Amino acid sequence: MSDSLSNQISAFKNLQRKLCRNYYLMSIVEFDGETVAPAKGAAARADAMGELAAERHELLTNGAARELVAALAEAEAAGELDQQTADELRVLARDQREATAIPAEEEAAWARLTAESNDAWHAAKTADDWASFEPYLARVVDGVKRRAAYLDSTRDPYDVMLDQFERGMDAAAYDAFFAQVKETVVPLVHDIARRPEKPMPAFATAYVPTAAQLAQARDLLALEGLDMDGLALAEVEHPFSNGVAPGDVRVTTHIYEHDALNSAFSVLHEGGHAIYEQNVDPAYAYTCLGCGTSSGVHESQSRFFENYIGRSRPFMGQLLSIMRAHAPEAFATATEDEFYRVVNRARPGLIRMEADELTYPLHIMIRYDIERMLFAGEARVSEIPALWSKLTREYLGLEVPDNAHGCLQDTHWSDGSFGYFPAYALGSAYGAQFLDAMVRAGVDVEGACASGDLAPVRAWLREHVWRRGSSVDGAQLVRDACGAPFDASYYCRYLVNKF
Amino acid sequence: MSDSLSNQISAFKNLQRKLCRNYYLMSIVEFDGETVAPAKGAAARADAMGELAAERHELLTNGAARELVAALAEAEAAGELDQQTADELRVLARDQREATAIPAEEEAAWARLTAESNDAWHAAKTADDWASFEPYLARVVDGVKRRAAYLDSTRDPYDVMLDQFERGMDAAAYDAFFAQVKETVVPLVHDIARRPEKPMPAFATAYVPTAAQLAQARDLLALEGLDMDGLALAEVEHPFSNGVAPGDVRVTTHIYEHDALNSAFSVLHEGGHAIYEQNVDPAYAYTCLGCGTSSGVHESQSRFFENYIGRSRPFMGQLLSIMRAHAPEAFATATEDEFYRVVNRARPGLIRMEADELTYPLHIMIRYDIERMLFAGEARVSEIPALWSKLTREYLGLEVPDNAHGCLQDTHWSDGSFGYFPAYALGSAYGAQFLDAMVRAGVDVEGACASGDLAPVRAWLREHVWRRGSSVDGAQLVRDACGAPFDASYYCRYLVNKF
Repeated sequence: MSDSLSNQISAFKNLQRKLCRNYYLMSIVEFDGETVAPAKGAAARADAMGELAAERHELLTNGAARELVAALAEAEAAGELDQQTADELRVLARDQREATAIPAEEEAAWARLTAESNDAWHAAKTADDWASFEPYLARVVDGVKRRAAYLDSTRDPYDVMLDQFERGMDAAAYDAFFAQVKETVVPLVHDIARRPEKPMPAFATAYVPTAAQLAQARDLLALEGLDMDGLALAEVEHPFSNGVAPGDVRVTTHIYEHDALNSAFSVLHEGGHAIYEQNVDPAYAYTCLGCGTSSGVHESQSRFFENYIGRSRPFMGQLLSIMRAHAPEAFATATEDEFYRVVNRARPGLIRMEADELTYPLHIMIRYDIERMLFAGEARVSEIPALWSKLTREYLGLEVPDNAHGCLQDTHWSDGSFGYFPAYALGSAYGAQFLDAMVRAGVDVEGACASGDLAPVRAWLREHVWRRGSSVDGAQLVRDACGAPFDASYYCRYLVNKF
Repeated sequence: MSDSLSNQISAFKNLQRKLCRNYYLMSIVEFDGETVAPAKGAAARADAMGELAAERHELLTNGAARELVAALAEAEAAGELDQQTADELRVLARDQREATAIPAEEEAAWARLTAESNDAWHAAKTADDWASFEPYLARVVDGVKRRAAYLDSTRDPYDVMLDQFERGMDAAAYDAFFAQVKETVVPLVHDIARRPEKPMPAFATAYVPTAAQLAQARDLLALEGLDMDGLALAEVEHPFSNGVAPGDVRVTTHIYEHDALNSAFSVLHEGGHAIYEQNVDPAYAYTCLGCGTSSGVHESQSRFFENYIGRSRPFMGQLLSIMRAHAPEAFATATEDEFYRVVNRARPGLIRMEADELTYPLHIMIRYDIERMLFAGEARVSEIPALWSKLTREYLGLEVPDNAHGCLQDTHWSDGSFGYFPAYALGSAYGAQFLDAMVRAGVDVEGACASGDLAPVRAWLREHVWRRGSSVDGAQLVRDACGAPFDASYYCRYLVNKF
């Protein structure tokens, strides 16, 4: 290797380290904001976050960084880069290209618009007042289209946005995916809605104090296999998780003292995200490959532990024993069968955040269909409430009583996150395909769930998913792990078998 | 004002804003580290903190910042600056001068040495092994002397260090202060040690769960007068507080479930620091004047609320009623008189962190005397254990059983914080003088304590201490507030009257 290439690679690693430090600071400030910061600290936090975002943009796009990426691209073309550096270059060059594509004044206007739009959404949801939000959302949709054109003017804007959240996916691929899900799940849900429902047992709403639920959360995370010395747990309003740095992964939960199962499954879910982050190849630490590769793959890991492990019949013994350890009276007489029935209750509802495993994808389909029409010019923003009612009736068999329980329920559109929901739904489907591949490879998943020793499950996921970090995109990762391209039929078969 | 001066002032305000942002980030990362970050996150945190420290140094000392300060100093000499800008310039120019004084390689070596020394101290304290720590401490003392010489080679090194922690103070002033304290307190303590002690009532060690103690903490902070929308409260091992930004002040506490009074007084103490930060003149927000002025004045506010308010006889009704509200059974039969006796128990002990109001200054005097001798060349580091035993016998009448309970108990020397302890002790004495001035000004302090409406007390402190932020140094602030220079006799009289 020439001296100059060696210097360039060293500068490149150094740039990535700086970007990781910037990400660390942003993550800590955001975590602090969600967990402990006082209300009046919002202005100072926004100021600091704005500065950090500007610093990231500058680090990524300044002249030296662009020259560095160009020089390394030449070296890569000449076959002079090792595999890891080539992967780092691919990811960082893409980030750089996208950060450079949108003019600074457009970015600034966008930041202002989405901040205003998000405020308007909060007020509109509280007041159930669609009309006050509609003009903001119309401007946001226009803004998203403009941004998509800056990113890639040769492609359909919605395809560009879908690609942002899950690389390699486009509307054609999602159309096929959702068509298959619709065909399977909609009849199932309508069928279930007609069946009489048994009453819930009393333990489902038994009182379990916060301290006991936090102890329960720690036991569940340890059972899941997290390295507890590299994990922080905190309470928040809306749970999330984040790998903030090597050795530092965060998990959050919301405690309802009369719904300990809610926190249990939320913790299993966030723990799935966290264990992915903890098991990325240490060689990728402080590089742009050091975290999970996409929303879809990340969600596949959280849903894997929440549903494919956590809601499986064989796991009920472990779950019951942990919950009983922290609330002996509440769960004294509960049986595994009752637990299984309670945690797998499937009923159509209006709110996505409260949806069960079966109806969840239908909530996503409502959003996908509307996004699709908005970007294809087949619907206007003003038609969203009517579309929402129509699709809810069609998919879930329910009437929407007001917009607060309908198209105003989610914050995502107000931020311009169009294309986010479909990537999210993909996760469950990836997960089902991983489960199939794992079983075919001889992993005794049911035995692991029953015994509580999940090591064989983790070994397969570590090898085929976790360790790879962001070195491959989601589609390639699924192909490599399963020996075949992504296929929604594993997911559909799983749902049919279960429900 | 000329255009160029106006531009310079605007650049100066902008520089201060950047320094405040840097402080905000450092504070949040540090708070996160103390409260929630996992053990394995230490390396990423140290990396980020190192980068932030380097950024602060660069912001403060780069060529443009030095030219700006020089240009504004000329404008100030020509009488062209308003009072606030002139105060900002005085504080920032001092910070700049000190940051520039120490060469970069010296700073780097110092950071390495103190990190190693701190590790060595941890190990030595655990193993009660002075010999393993002694060589590190010897190097730290040499390092402090060198740093002091860089800061001001014309002054005695210990005076330079004392001035770092409390501007305007030197060894001569502290000698006089401690001589007076010694004369008053030592005979008192020896006298008390001879009196028979009544047994503690059972409520002093009653079980009060963490959740109840946190609720109790919130009530105490609200009573103290903190703006709860601008305050965060968290649990830590060693309590501290910090004003991280306008609108965002942090208070921490340690909960012992069998010692609810410990947390109550720790919260009153940290709340005193926090209310000072919350009440700095809003015109100083995002400038170098926007926080409390010194360790000594800060400590005067925490000790004021902890001792002069919190441990006063008239306050016992309020304290008892708040504690009873959160633990009715534990404090059901306690009386105000019993409470007063328990919270004012004074007994010599070996550990500074557990010392009561009366014996606390003697612990500081042990440290001050040793620091004084080390810097005057009258003692060597190897003599510290023997000196510690001698002084503990003299001041506290106790034998030191081992170095872990003696000269290894505090972390501060391992970090090079020589000169810190005396400034800390000054706080209680400032507080007594403020109390006297307040009463002379007609504030009914006892009435406020009895009624729980501390507004008149706050009004005096806000006017004479809090609002001034860092616009004046401690000595001047005391002079302005009390109409006379600092005088230790108020403190000594208070202790004699009380004990």
